[in-house]
This record gives sequence, C-alpha cells and structure tokens, in this order.
Amino acid sequence: MQQIRVGIVGYGNLGRGVECALRRAPDLKLTGVFTRRPPDRVHIRTPGVPVRSADALEAEADTVDVLILCTGSAEDLPVQSPACALRRPIVDSFDTHARIPEHFAAVDAAARSGGTLALLSAGWDPGLFSLARVWAGAVLPGSRCETFWGPGVSQGHSDAVRRLPGVADARAYTIPVPAALEALEGEDAPPLSPREKHTRVCYVAAEEGADREAIRAAITGMPHYFRDYDTQVHFLSRQDLEREHPGLPHGGRVLCRGRTGWEAEHTARMEVRLALDSNPEFTGCVLVACARAAWRLYTAGERGARTLLDVPPALLSPLPPEELRRTLL
Amino acid sequence: MQQIRVGIVGYGNLGRGVECALRRAPDLKLTGVFTRRPPDRVHIRTPGVPVRSADALEAEADTVDVLILCTGSAEDLPVQSPACALRRPIVDSFDTHARIPEHFAAVDAAARSGGTLALLSAGWDPGLFSLARVWAGAVLPGSRCETFWGPGVSQGHSDAVRRLPGVADARAYTIPVPAALEALEGEDAPPLSPREKHTRVCYVAAEEGADREAIRAAITGMPHYFRDYDTQVHFLSRQDLEREHPGLPHGGRVLCRGRTGWEAEHTARMEVRLALDSNPEFTGCVLVACARAAWRLYTAGERGARTLLDVPPALLSPLPPEELRRTLL
Repeated sequence: MQQIRVGIVGYGNLGRGVECALRRAPDLKLTGVFTRRPPDRVHIRTPGVPVRSADALEAEADTVDVLILCTGSAEDLPVQSPACALRRPIVDSFDTHARIPEHFAAVDAAARSGGTLALLSAGWDPGLFSLARVWAGAVLPGSRCETFWGPGVSQGHSDAVRRLPGVADARAYTIPVPAALEALEGEDAPPLSPREKHTRVCYVAAEEGADREAIRAAITGMPHYFRDYDTQVHFLSRQDLEREHPGLPHGGRVLCRGRTGWEAEHTARMEVRLALDSNPEFTGCVLVACARAAWRLYTAGERGARTLLDVPPALLSPLPPEELRRTLL
Repeated sequence: MQQIRVGIVGYGNLGRGVECALRRAPDLKLTGVFTRRPPDRVHIRTPGVPVRSADALEAEADTVDVLILCTGSAEDLPVQSPACALRRPIVDSFDTHARIPEHFAAVDAAARSGGTLALLSAGWDPGLFSLARVWAGAVLPGSRCETFWGPGVSQGHSDAVRRLPGVADARAYTIPVPAALEALEGEDAPPLSPREKHTRVCYVAAEEGADREAIRAAITGMPHYFRDYDTQVHFLSRQDLEREHPGLPHGGRVLCRGRTGWEAEHTARMEVRLALDSNPEFTGCVLVACARAAWRLYTAGERGARTLLDVPPALLSPLPPEELRRTLL
C-alpha cells in the first residue's frame, strides 16, 4: 500500500494531536513537521521524521502529499492556508464562524490557481456538529437546532484571559446551563440568549502583587468573550492550576427538533453528543481522516476548496466502500 | 424554480410519510402515486395528483424525475428496485442488513445499464446511524460502536406476530435494556448479546377462541425475531390495542467510544440519538432529502448505485452551498 505522506504545519496542541492520530492511521504517514520556532528546539515524538522551518515549506513541497495546518484561526490560517494551498492539497480547522465565507473564497482561489484541493474548517465544530445541523435542516424543514458546548476548556477564551496584565496562566471553561437543556425538552421553548445557554468559569493564576479585582473586572467585562455570560473567576496558585486543570477536555451537543406528519402533528428529535478527554487530540483525529479524504478527492481530479459538507462520508474511512456497506451500513 | 417531480411507489405507512414530507419540500413535487392495489380504491391526500397502477410505471416514466420506492425489503424491493432503476433515478430504503451487498450489486448493474442513478438503503438505520458508525470508525480507529433501537414499534416484528394463527392484530416493541446502556459508560465493557441489549414486548389481540398459550409459545420461540430476547407477551382486546397503541414511534442511539493520545490514554465518546413520534414519517423525510440528492447526482452525470455513505451531505439540503457555509457550518 502506498501511504499518503502528511506534513504537519505548526506543532502546538493540535499539531501534537495530529501526530498521535497519524500513529493509528495505517494508510498515512508523517513525513515532516514545519514550525516557525527554531527547528532544533522542537522535539517531536515520531522517530526519524525531520522538523523543518516553516520557511522551507516551498522547497519541501515534494516530500508531502497533504499538509495539515495546525496553526491559529485568528492570525495564521488566513495567510497560511491560501499560501500552502497554492502548492499542495491542504486541510485546516479554521473555526472563526463569521469569517468562514471569506476564508473559503481566498483558499478556493489559491487552490484553483495552484491546481490543488483544500478541505477547510474541519474538526467537530465546525465539522461533525455542522453535519448534524445540515442533516436536520435537510430532513426536517423548519426544524430548530441548538448547539451547546462543554463542559470543557475553551482554548480561545483561556488565551484571552492569559493576555490580560497580571495574569500568569489561566483556564476558561464553558459549561452548558442545565435549565437550558431542560427547556429544550418542552414544546416551543423560546429562543435562548448566550447567557441562558452557557456559563463561563475561569481559573486564574495571578502574578505576584497583581490586582485581582482589576483582573476579575477585566475578564467579566470583556466583550464577545465574557461580558454576555455569567462568568465566575477563581484565583489559585500556578502550581494548583497546573495540577488541578492539566487537560484540555471538551465536548458538547447539537439538539434538533422538527415536525413530521400531514399537519406537522408529530415531533422528531435528533441529537449528536461528544465528550472528549482531549479536544486537540480528537480534532487531530478528524483532521487526519480529512487528509485521507482530501487526497482521494485530489487524486480523483477535484480542485478548489471544500468543507466536510462536500465530502462523501466513505472517503473519510480507510475501509473500502464494499466493506463499509457490508459491515457498517 | 424547476421542481423535481417525484413518484411514490407503494402507498402504505412509508408512502404516506413520503407524501407528508414532500408537502414541506418546496423544491420537489409529487406527480404520481403507483400502487398494486386497484388505483380507484387508494385515496391520497395531495389534491390533483393521479394514482396509477404499478403496471403503468413503464408508460409513465416520463412524468417523474425520481421514484421513491416505499415497498417492503423482504419481497418487493429486490425485484422493484432493479426494474425501476433501469428507467429512472430511484431512492429506496432497503433495510435487510445482511442482503445489502447483493441488493446493491443488482441495482448498480440495472442503473448502469439504464444510465440512471439509485440511492439505496436510505433512512435512519441503515442511514443516519450508519453515518455515525462510519464517522466513528474513520476518526477513531479501533473504536467500538453499539447501536440500540427503541423504545419503539418494530414493524417487521409486529408483522411476524400478526402472521401467526389466531392473531387478529399485534404490536411488537423493542426496548433497550437500561443496564446495557449503563454498562457502556464503564471502561472496557464486555460485548453484549442480543438479549443483554434489547427486550421485546408484544401486545396481541387474539381471535375469539384462540389458544393464547399456543400464541405465546409461538412468539417467544420464534427464531431470529424473538427467541434470542427476553420477550413479554400481553393480550388485550382489538379495541384496546388500537386505542392504546395507535402510533408508530421509534428511535434509538449509536454509542461510540474510542481512544486518542500517543498511548491511547484518553477517551472520546460520540453519540447519535433519535426519538421519533412517527418512524415512517421521519423515514419519509429522509427519503425525500435523498431524492433531492439523487437527482443532483444524476444531473451531474453520475450513474449507478450509491448509499448515503457516498453522498456529500450538502446535496441533501435545499439551501445553496454558500448559505450552508455561512449559516450552518
């Protein structure tokens, strides 16, 4: 079997998650890690795989079939995804929902101009949860879906707290409000505000002598991130933070309710749930399955940008179609 | 907008479910119902749509774009699906899991020879639940999925009871065993037998003077259907059966658990749940979305048999791809 050669761009939590996932995918192999840090300071776990400077991406394009981009949606992917898609098929997990259309358009243009294929915004939300929402909308017209995230660590929100003056380290948890989940069990529940759906809980290690009340006020007043939510802030030592909050668990659910019958007299409920000990590891697993699908679409002659909404699910699986039909359909 | 013209073949519970679903799909319209009963005895709900004999299918092929086959998997679809696929794109809900490969091969040959497209085994299981199993297998190699059905009315099992001598009418419910659901929460739960996963509960209206103990023994000893399960049999009058068990609710869940991390040290759980007031109405909704996808694949030039595993999810939706990316991704 000719293995698909995969390059990882960016070796943070997500890049390490992709590396773990590649270890269990027999039809793909890691052939390079690309980093903006000095390569000799980045120590990866897979033996015999070179770590190179991100500047070497162009020169090394022939050593990989698919690049998995594991950098940030805010600053990195808007630049890197189009640049990389010019040369190789890519997969990214761009997750700034409001900016997906412009990101898609930019990468689509690059991939078409370079004759490659890009599978964008892959993961679990956007990703698996998007599929649930599209399915519900397609099958149950007029249905309503509510998405809940957590309980789990929001990395974007944790970063936002960490950037505040006086903060040494922080974890921000997102927790669904139990009453909101219950309300959706009832008929015709009214729309829920952000505050009614989720609570935010922050654990903060302050620097010595920092003004804790100022930190608390800066967090709870932060627009977009915390101001629209009931936000709790707890202070603890750096050691306790590391000991009590070592992991990056996450998860959530998409709850959809629609109607069937001649007079819409019957209810149909659909739900997708995820509970993950490690968010970046699971997202890495999704990206690896997407790299397989992207390579198959590319070798079948498809060009341009795609999302998981465009991917036949069988292409994600290492198993041949007839075995999927026989064993899993 | 040019509406997709849909013909329904078979006007039982599922055919009526498809008719209801078409009412809420603005881009499709019902243009004919085909039945093996005398057409003048079949009264459909959509005004102005002709009911014709199934024998007229060949002559009427030009009045429909896609045929949705709503007949039975045991006797009808193995014959009708290949015959119809020779002439028009079709959708069916063939659900005898063990015979899917041969059904797929027969319809694939017919569709290729006729230059059409057939989307087979659509519904929720096979269907949505299959997608969950394939997703889990693709993303979490080595993961384990357990599928539970119910609580709900199993139409195949109800029919099997109804065919017994002395039975006037019957409903057979499938109910997941709570202890089995709990066992899966634990680590490394052992494999579950059919009896450990599901209970069967039958409500039977016996004919006057029938031997109830003989009926009970015939049910609980019936191979495949009831013998491998703890099966309860309750007798009640025909009136009570109709009053207390008027609907065809169903549902179920697919529970998948896999591992992530370098040493597989973390757990990831994925679950898909359905709770349906009406099984045939929801299945009808899925078939209608599949008719849309089948027509799009066909008009894009694809030929042969497909299943939901081969369908890009966006093709199921009436919304254009850019709107799906903007609002649901």
